Amino acid sequence: MPLPVPALPEGVDPAWLPPAAFRAVGGRRTLIRGSGPLVETVHGEVAEACRRFGGRVVREARPDGATYDLVLGLGADDLGDEGFSCARADGTTTVTASGGRGLLYGLFHVVRLGEAAFTGGWARQTHRPALDLRMLDHWDNVAVHPVMGQVERGYAGGSLFWADGRARGDLERVRAYGRLLAACGINAVAVNNVNVHETEAHLLTDRIHEVAAIADVLRPYGVATHLSVSFAAPVVLGGLPTADPLDEAVRDWWGEATRRVYEAIPDFGGYVVKADSEGQPGPFAYGRSHAEGANMLAAALEPFGGTVHWRAFVYNHRQDWRDRTTDRARAAYDHFVPLDGEFAANAVLQVKHGPMDFQVREPVSPLIGAMPRTRLAVEVQATQEYTGQQRHVCWLGPMWSEVLRFRHEPEASVGERARGGLVAVSNAGDDPFWTGHPLAQANLYTFGRLAWRPDADPCEVLDEWIGLTFPEAPERLSDGLHAALDGSWRTYEKYTAPLGVGWMVQPGHHYGPSVDGYEYSPWGTYHFADRDGIGVDRSVASGTGYAGQYAKPWAELYESPDTCPDELLLFFHHVSYGHTLHSGKAVIQHIYDTHFEGVAEVEEARRVWAGLADLVEPGRHARVAERYEEQLRSAREWRDQINSYFFRKSGVPDERGRRIY
Amino acid sequence: MPLPVPALPEGVDPAWLPPAAFRAVGGRRTLIRGSGPLVETVHGEVAEACRRFGGRVVREARPDGATYDLVLGLGADDLGDEGFSCARADGTTTVTASGGRGLLYGLFHVVRLGEAAFTGGWARQTHRPALDLRMLDHWDNVAVHPVMGQVERGYAGGSLFWADGRARGDLERVRAYGRLLAACGINAVAVNNVNVHETEAHLLTDRIHEVAAIADVLRPYGVATHLSVSFAAPVVLGGLPTADPLDEAVRDWWGEATRRVYEAIPDFGGYVVKADSEGQPGPFAYGRSHAEGANMLAAALEPFGGTVHWRAFVYNHRQDWRDRTTDRARAAYDHFVPLDGEFAANAVLQVKHGPMDFQVREPVSPLIGAMPRTRLAVEVQATQEYTGQQRHVCWLGPMWSEVLRFRHEPEASVGERARGGLVAVSNAGDDPFWTGHPLAQANLYTFGRLAWRPDADPCEVLDEWIGLTFPEAPERLSDGLHAALDGSWRTYEKYTAPLGVGWMVQPGHHYGPSVDGYEYSPWGTYHFADRDGIGVDRSVASGTGYAGQYAKPWAELYESPDTCPDELLLFFHHVSYGHTLHSGKAVIQHIYDTHFEGVAEVEEARRVWAGLADLVEPGRHARVAERYEEQLRSAREWRDQINSYFFRKSGVPDERGRRIY
Repeated sequence: MPLPVPALPEGVDPAWLPPAAFRAVGGRRTLIRGSGPLVETVHGEVAEACRRFGGRVVREARPDGATYDLVLGLGADDLGDEGFSCARADGTTTVTASGGRGLLYGLFHVVRLGEAAFTGGWARQTHRPALDLRMLDHWDNVAVHPVMGQVERGYAGGSLFWADGRARGDLERVRAYGRLLAACGINAVAVNNVNVHETEAHLLTDRIHEVAAIADVLRPYGVATHLSVSFAAPVVLGGLPTADPLDEAVRDWWGEATRRVYEAIPDFGGYVVKADSEGQPGPFAYGRSHAEGANMLAAALEPFGGTVHWRAFVYNHRQDWRDRTTDRARAAYDHFVPLDGEFAANAVLQVKHGPMDFQVREPVSPLIGAMPRTRLAVEVQATQEYTGQQRHVCWLGPMWSEVLRFRHEPEASVGERARGGLVAVSNAGDDPFWTGHPLAQANLYTFGRLAWRPDADPCEVLDEWIGLTFPEAPERLSDGLHAALDGSWRTYEKYTAPLGVGWMVQPGHHYGPSVDGYEYSPWGTYHFADRDGIGVDRSVASGTGYAGQYAKPWAELYESPDTCPDELLLFFHHVSYGHTLHSGKAVIQHIYDTHFEGVAEVEEARRVWAGLADLVEPGRHARVAERYEEQLRSAREWRDQINSYFFRKSGVPDERGRRIY
Repeated sequence: MPLPVPALPEGVDPAWLPPAAFRAVGGRRTLIRGSGPLVETVHGEVAEACRRFGGRVVREARPDGATYDLVLGLGADDLGDEGFSCARADGTTTVTASGGRGLLYGLFHVVRLGEAAFTGGWARQTHRPALDLRMLDHWDNVAVHPVMGQVERGYAGGSLFWADGRARGDLERVRAYGRLLAACGINAVAVNNVNVHETEAHLLTDRIHEVAAIADVLRPYGVATHLSVSFAAPVVLGGLPTADPLDEAVRDWWGEATRRVYEAIPDFGGYVVKADSEGQPGPFAYGRSHAEGANMLAAALEPFGGTVHWRAFVYNHRQDWRDRTTDRARAAYDHFVPLDGEFAANAVLQVKHGPMDFQVREPVSPLIGAMPRTRLAVEVQATQEYTGQQRHVCWLGPMWSEVLRFRHEPEASVGERARGGLVAVSNAGDDPFWTGHPLAQANLYTFGRLAWRPDADPCEVLDEWIGLTFPEAPERLSDGLHAALDGSWRTYEKYTAPLGVGWMVQPGHHYGPSVDGYEYSPWGTYHFADRDGIGVDRSVASGTGYAGQYAKPWAELYESPDTCPDELLLFFHHVSYGHTLHSGKAVIQHIYDTHFEGVAEVEEARRVWAGLADLVEPGRHARVAERYEEQLRSAREWRDQINSYFFRKSGVPDERGRRIY
């Protein structure tokens, strides 16, 4: 039976799968060959498109030798479960896959191509994901937290999965979410927050049926379900006196708990663990290493083919700001590099892309280049915690692309090293536009596509997203959207913390500027600005030595302010306000200039958007327009606070005499 | 029937009424004359003391002409309801009052005197409260707020009055609270938060019986009950389309609501209103003045003898920090002085003692000197929002005394001008020690005694509190307690924001330092520190003109940095770090010195307290000792953040070369 396409609840935006995106496919005669659940998903998609656009779809070739415009079929031998190939000859476009997921991805490839899929003839292309795991971590809580709300760092309403204290009864929207994820290549979701609170701990055991219900509706879209678990589960849930990973009873408890999980969800993906991090329990309490902790869970999962994703976000979050010898940036490397080679084959070390925490600009984590004998997953943050919280337009494609193309040594890029997958903290919630800011959908889509092909040109992905989301858009609209999004990350960088130094946000909620907000805090997040200069000396020669965690040539490049790239200068060095950048500008003038420029760029983007009112449906246009107002207000606040702060501190006037308060 | 003394719940501290405080009274033969509810309260007190210490109490003189050690009786003609006189002659101490409250206050006077009340002979003294209203405002919510907790700015547990969403069923502890208040002379309590949320709005109408239950148990201690009400009540509760104070239907609604309040509570004190302040509704919405708003409520209360306390805390809390022409300090004066003479006789304008918000050091509000034709109440804050949140010892007696003795013109002190009463935001809650920090009880007691006699020497009040709370304490203990408390306000001032500039606290919860925490905020709270200097120019000549709100000689004194008192210099002037204080020190060196001194003083106080372990009961000693640890940690944090901030900004090294980070 073909799987019906999910019915979107009234008022929910179809995102990058509006019906019109299926026009080319839906007007054709299509043959689908093969069997299995995902083939039924493919059939349902094509059938729905044909219903709308007048085409036809069959499952068996007619004996009379009728020809088809599109043939989607299983049968390829060597493409893995997710790969597909396609070609067009003699008026027929053929997609062949080895497995159901490959066929579904092939269908969405044809959808993306649109009319081009059915034009002329073209040679066989083969597509396979570069990374096996393309995952979203949802920091969703079942219970609503009185301060954090339901979704930690969520800016798109409540959770898609959980409502009223339990898994949603109506999972039709989760089905629609799974479909969107499949259409951009995402194949795994962790359905709860890595900070596992008391209620959520029970999802592992007595509430696993709720997770299973979610897994059931994601499965037809090739999306595997993972669960964040508490390292203390044997104590909290099992009543054991310890969670020591080398304790036999603890190991047995995890083994049994995991067996029951797989009873409920046979294709369960595995566990995500935040251990010994920001107050979460972990192996340190028992004098065990993180490899010992991770391997215990890996052993429990191994018989069932599951994986543990063990986060490397371990640092001292109760640091004394007076202590300049401790450098949070060093922490992940210092903790984990000594463990390289000790992790089990199904234990993936999940590393944030930068050494700090998803700032608008960070160097690439040196840990990613220093664990050749460990399966690594790289974690990025689609939810815009530090990048405007989906009130600001900040398309992160270029940042992620820079990270993924970065080469610690010439031999391998980050995208190649991420053998354990690419993971994003999701930016989606039960908001009608899925992501709060309608344009933030582009981040979710871009993440999926970059996870499939980390060396893709993000600009092409952006245009792909525009093409799908606004099918048949006139050039003025697609150009306008491209302009609004393309440079938005650099714009955001301009009006916020300068030159890679990071932070300067309001403590707690992290929205809006507070230059000293994290300066005297226990979080390890400092800029050390005084009347003479600013920045953190992380050189080996005179600083914390962080620069030495990189292999050459990066260690040498970052070591000296003369060779360090401008955009990371204050991350690596403390320099005077008069220090001349490679750009030729003094640091202080750079601060002033970029902050004025950033605001001007937001003003321009707002103007461009206003000019598109006739081309965008009113609800979406209004939502974006209203967020531009807030972005502009906030950008001006950033500009004025940052400029005033540094003018008051440095006493250096703006060369151009602009207004600083 | 004598009223039984309240039974304290297990583990609750008796504060300044431990049984031993009644030893002198309890060992005597006492005659009580007169009748009425409060005479029964007096009888119950004496009876309980006699039960413990072997004395006797009777209500009618024996016909055989027996003599008594103590005669407490109604009968004086001219002392008002609260005054009393006392004398001792021929071996009998006589207390005479015109009303029941006076008699109760007279009894507590004898208790305070202890053995001295029964020693020798002494001439008649007459005692009357200088202020008719001595009131506590409880910022207690019925419902627990997810962020603020139950008691806004409360640091002593939950509410004494409200639990589980309603008035406590067992009000025995509220009785005990009333008794403590009577013993220090407090005669009124507002039982709910001035920020009136939805649940609490209903106390005025359908939940007035809960307020009545509280009033019933406070009444025998001479404590009247007041209620904070929402100006929007006619809309929120009455379903009217407006709350316009000149609308007849609105006035009728208030009249009828008030009539019902008095039906439930015949001696109800009146309303407290925070209007047009920090988001609360008010008359501005209808184009009406605050006098019109207050007078409407006054009119509703007038037939029943009630009073409206209308808070003058009206300012723009959405100020743009870039706008230097707006000065929050000016706001109350600017709003209310034009209305002088327009308020009804039973409308009291309740003015915070300083122009900002209960900072550790502020000038006295100029408004207090500028409304001769208005009944004013002066509001202080016993709850230590900005003065250490009952984790730090900060005895506020000297600060309040300075305020009360301040004379805007030679003719009248603040204490004399506060014809509408003295009001404190309560620091009490359901904590076993009532006030979180056991030594913070001294603030509550001192407030009551200063409200009774604003020109009292606060040091004598402190010793009175020590004498009652620690009866029969050896000199080492009373000296130690005196030392710990006496200078604690100045110590706190030393290690926090310097020279009257205020703020520099963590936004939101207001605990701990953040020098720039309120610098770029909408709250009107700035220090304007740059690399050259610091302070707010509030002079008439070059600043906001706030200094001109004072009458001479203060306007002239504050106008110039040469004559402005050191401790307020940065409140009134922006000066360079090198500016020489009257003390002879440069501002920057003063900052360093006071911050090192403040911490040293906390270290010394902690040491003194540790040395008293053998003289204080262990639970109380441990609680205080533990809070000293936190106070010291926090004081060091203040010292280091403030010193580092100003060293980084000014570049001026400490003359004495001490460690600055």
